[in-house]
Amino acid sequence: MRVLGVDPGLTRCGVGVIESGRAREIACLGVGVVRTPSTDELADRLMAVAEGVEGWMDAHRPEVVAVERVFSQQNVRTVMGTAQVSGIVALAAARRDLPVAFHTPSAVKAAISGSGRADKRQVTTMITKILGLESPPKPADAADALALAVCHLWRAPMSDRIAEAEAKAAQLARNHRARLADAARERGSTGGQQR
Amino acid sequence: MRVLGVDPGLTRCGVGVIESGRAREIACLGVGVVRTPSTDELADRLMAVAEGVEGWMDAHRPEVVAVERVFSQQNVRTVMGTAQVSGIVALAAARRDLPVAFHTPSAVKAAISGSGRADKRQVTTMITKILGLESPPKPADAADALALAVCHLWRAPMSDRIAEAEAKAAQLARNHRARLADAARERGSTGGQQR
Repeated sequence: MRVLGVDPGLTRCGVGVIESGRAREIACLGVGVVRTPSTDELADRLMAVAEGVEGWMDAHRPEVVAVERVFSQQNVRTVMGTAQVSGIVALAAARRDLPVAFHTPSAVKAAISGSGRADKRQVTTMITKILGLESPPKPADAADALALAVCHLWRAPMSDRIAEAEAKAAQLARNHRARLADAARERGSTGGQQR
Repeated sequence: MRVLGVDPGLTRCGVGVIESGRAREIACLGVGVVRTPSTDELADRLMAVAEGVEGWMDAHRPEVVAVERVFSQQNVRTVMGTAQVSGIVALAAARRDLPVAFHTPSAVKAAISGSGRADKRQVTTMITKILGLESPPKPADAADALALAVCHLWRAPMSDRIAEAEAKAAQLARNHRARLADAARERGSTGGQQR
């Protein structure tokens, strides 16, 4: 599976493409940052980020796009721009019929480092190791984009398995209810005979 | 001038088109709401809102788009969706070469009711009066979109006038500095003679 990870941002939007191979091997197909100057008008910046990220989608043809889920804990001005970019990225993916998955920063950290509270350095170290890169990806936004993509790859089979288990459980519950209903009906008819 | 006002939102995105006529007359060309079901996937909802708002842009061909500036004071989940939609609307406008202006809720309220703390009822009452509508626009998001457009229309000439006044003041300051420099030079030469 080929995954495009996007760490949304107005000033620096991290992008990274990975592909899962055999066993647990994952290859990094590309990583970078789409930048827009803070002196530009907001609408122009949004358009520039859209064009940049769409360029990555069209060049690498991912099967799924993983985007960081934005929380409003950070600086108000920053978080608004980040949310706007995340919306634009999700829109671009949806228009290409690509599924979009959102992962929280702590889920990403936990997936690749074992701790939801890992710092930026730890994330960069782990992503460099996991993807077998010669040097750590820079800036942090680029590393985060790759981490998002890897997180998606590793979480996806798990959520698929959960969905499968839930479907099985639901089927069992339906069977059980049907058997109970049958039993009740039988009891009803025999009960009639007993009277 | 024809203005499209957009009150961004995922569940209900208000849209309203107005046009300024002679004197202070403003006509309402259309008002409505783009809705997306909360049960749909986020990316699909964003795409549906984008298509809806773009439909309004293409049908009414506004010269400018006025969008509510989002703050992260509200509910975290809601504000993220709102910010994502505002980004998508700004992108759609920029791709049509339309200028985008952001106005804060309090600026909108102040522009049409005289108070930045006006409540929803007041805004609806005033927008109905200003546009000479037969009945108040519903829901509140639709009324807010029209209020945004009117706010833009009334603020735009003001900010143009402020810019003009500032340019004039800068020119006067330059003239004044030049005259001071001339005077100083003259004083310098006559001073030499006096010695």
